[in-house]
Amino acid sequence: MAYNRRSFIKTTTIFTFGGLAVPQLTNAKMKGILPKQGLKLSFEPYNLQLKHVFTLANSSRTTTPVMLTKIEFDGFTGYGEASMPPYLGETQKTAAKFLSGLNLEQFTDPFRMDEILEYVDNKAPQNNAAKASVDIALHDLVGKIIGQPWYKIWGFSSENTPVTSFTIGIDSREVVIEKVKEAAEFKILKVKLGRENDKNMIEAIRSVSDVPLCVDVNQGWKDKNMALDMIFWLKEKGIEFVEQPMPKELTNEIAWLTENSPLPIIADEAIQRLPDVKKTIGIYSGINIKLMKCTGMREAHKMVNLAHANQMKVMIGCMTETSCAVSAAAQLSPMAEWADLDGNLLISNDPYSGIKIVNGKVTLNNNPGIGISIS
Amino acid sequence: MAYNRRSFIKTTTIFTFGGLAVPQLTNAKMKGILPKQGLKLSFEPYNLQLKHVFTLANSSRTTTPVMLTKIEFDGFTGYGEASMPPYLGETQKTAAKFLSGLNLEQFTDPFRMDEILEYVDNKAPQNNAAKASVDIALHDLVGKIIGQPWYKIWGFSSENTPVTSFTIGIDSREVVIEKVKEAAEFKILKVKLGRENDKNMIEAIRSVSDVPLCVDVNQGWKDKNMALDMIFWLKEKGIEFVEQPMPKELTNEIAWLTENSPLPIIADEAIQRLPDVKKTIGIYSGINIKLMKCTGMREAHKMVNLAHANQMKVMIGCMTETSCAVSAAAQLSPMAEWADLDGNLLISNDPYSGIKIVNGKVTLNNNPGIGISIS
Repeated sequence: MAYNRRSFIKTTTIFTFGGLAVPQLTNAKMKGILPKQGLKLSFEPYNLQLKHVFTLANSSRTTTPVMLTKIEFDGFTGYGEASMPPYLGETQKTAAKFLSGLNLEQFTDPFRMDEILEYVDNKAPQNNAAKASVDIALHDLVGKIIGQPWYKIWGFSSENTPVTSFTIGIDSREVVIEKVKEAAEFKILKVKLGRENDKNMIEAIRSVSDVPLCVDVNQGWKDKNMALDMIFWLKEKGIEFVEQPMPKELTNEIAWLTENSPLPIIADEAIQRLPDVKKTIGIYSGINIKLMKCTGMREAHKMVNLAHANQMKVMIGCMTETSCAVSAAAQLSPMAEWADLDGNLLISNDPYSGIKIVNGKVTLNNNPGIGISIS
Repeated sequence: MAYNRRSFIKTTTIFTFGGLAVPQLTNAKMKGILPKQGLKLSFEPYNLQLKHVFTLANSSRTTTPVMLTKIEFDGFTGYGEASMPPYLGETQKTAAKFLSGLNLEQFTDPFRMDEILEYVDNKAPQNNAAKASVDIALHDLVGKIIGQPWYKIWGFSSENTPVTSFTIGIDSREVVIEKVKEAAEFKILKVKLGRENDKNMIEAIRSVSDVPLCVDVNQGWKDKNMALDMIFWLKEKGIEFVEQPMPKELTNEIAWLTENSPLPIIADEAIQRLPDVKKTIGIYSGINIKLMKCTGMREAHKMVNLAHANQMKVMIGCMTETSCAVSAAAQLSPMAEWADLDGNLLISNDPYSGIKIVNGKVTLNNNPGIGISIS
């Protein structure tokens, strides 16, 4: 498929994908001859090129498919993104189908976010990343109309952003050591565990770095006693918390682990949307909130408040994403105890620039909306 | 005490109360000669004149003391209010003392609401109405800088506002009938019960009106079996829900009542701030959120989300207040199942105009901030 990414981002173009056409506003409508102009949604698939092969407990890959979105209204353009790593079940095709089925032109006031996003959510089940791509673009649009970044609209202070972890994938000792050296700027590294070589991974890192670590097991451990032994070993090695140590279905085992663990246990695969937060109370110490799983910034904001009201800690995470979705998530990060917002740093073809990591810390800018510009 | 209310609202004046002076910005500072101007808080006591004697289960009164507040910044002025009905423990003197102790000039960015309001909250325990008067003024200020009303910033749709109840105090049959006739515009009336004449009150109203009713018992019933019998009787009379039927300490009895009641049971005295919401889950069907009890709009917004995440219903209530605090609360009302926002309608000397009740429904305007103007 041939397309010009800059032209999508910078201009209003008719786009078709898999035979699905997105309706265009005519110039007459754009010029306001018709009294009430609706929101104009468009979208385009894009493939993120990863700098390194990305290895999780059960898969490896070199690209991540995303859908870039755009909502135009009254001379303003809001940008959004759906990132769809293959294991989550969405594809560019499912996203295009979902987005094509939306009629946002019926909405003539972008501030009615509750109503607009409820319409989007009710259009079809699942499609959470596609839904997030609308939510993010809408937030970017409204923030631009307001003239403020969302972290300010939400009343946060920019210096409260946490340090972000940088993820070290599962790999050979040599590659792991190389990656850790490249990541010297980061104040905390996230190590993917859950395979045979877990202790080797940690020892390889500790041979070259004393930086604090957190580990993401991606449900990789199957036995609670082995998991607890491992966590005690990890604590001795300077690990700060453990993400999704066991399969999410094993709630009794995980609750037992959390009760006995010397480190906080954070839910990742176990949590997607707002109603899932309640299910993690008493089972986990905290939750990892990702826009692509929870349908976007609006629901994520509610999830942070709900988690905190229940004394749960919060990590704001991401997929491999462009600076668009990462900057959107970063708007929430002053509320979070931890951030894992390195998704844009893992790719070599980011069409946007947005938040920066400065001395390992999430660093917001004052651009309105989600704080991105076209790079 | 002699003072000129319009001069307080319209101008920047030095105000002293009970020997406590509020520091003033110099003209040089006002004109921006100094590089960073802080938030300027001022305040003035005001006494609301009630149109009718107001009778609750345990008290009667004809006035309500309030404190009007103002935060000035960069040519914008945000208005706030603390309403202090005597049974809640705050007075104009305690509010003046609390507000005088605040140094908001240290804050040069009003958008940092989390930080500013955390500072205010941590300054001293309690003083919730005084804290709300800062929160409301800050929201009004930030909304005016943004140029939007808060209901829009929060993403709500104005037509989702509920009808508001209008409160009929405990009184003689004749006066009750007179009040009900005066309240013909309202789609739901709130009846204060909890004394000997409960059934007489309801029957007096039903002799002249079929309008839906809700009842607020203000903890007045002491026996759960009597309360349940009464609730079954009330259901037959077209009552829609029951607020705080029994003393808040009787959680087991109230939980039993909620489980067996044919009508929703709403917490009022049992709930003040965000952490109280969790304590009502499983005990009540819903909560009544009042800005004066929960320290303002920011915490109220979180409380609504937390309640809804736990399948609790929400009423946005008020004290006797000017249009200032009522309009602030009304910004949240599109999220709420019920509203009880008649506080400004009960007074004869409202210095502001703001939200209106049109055909019984809370009707927001598009003025930025909390949507008030000086009347």
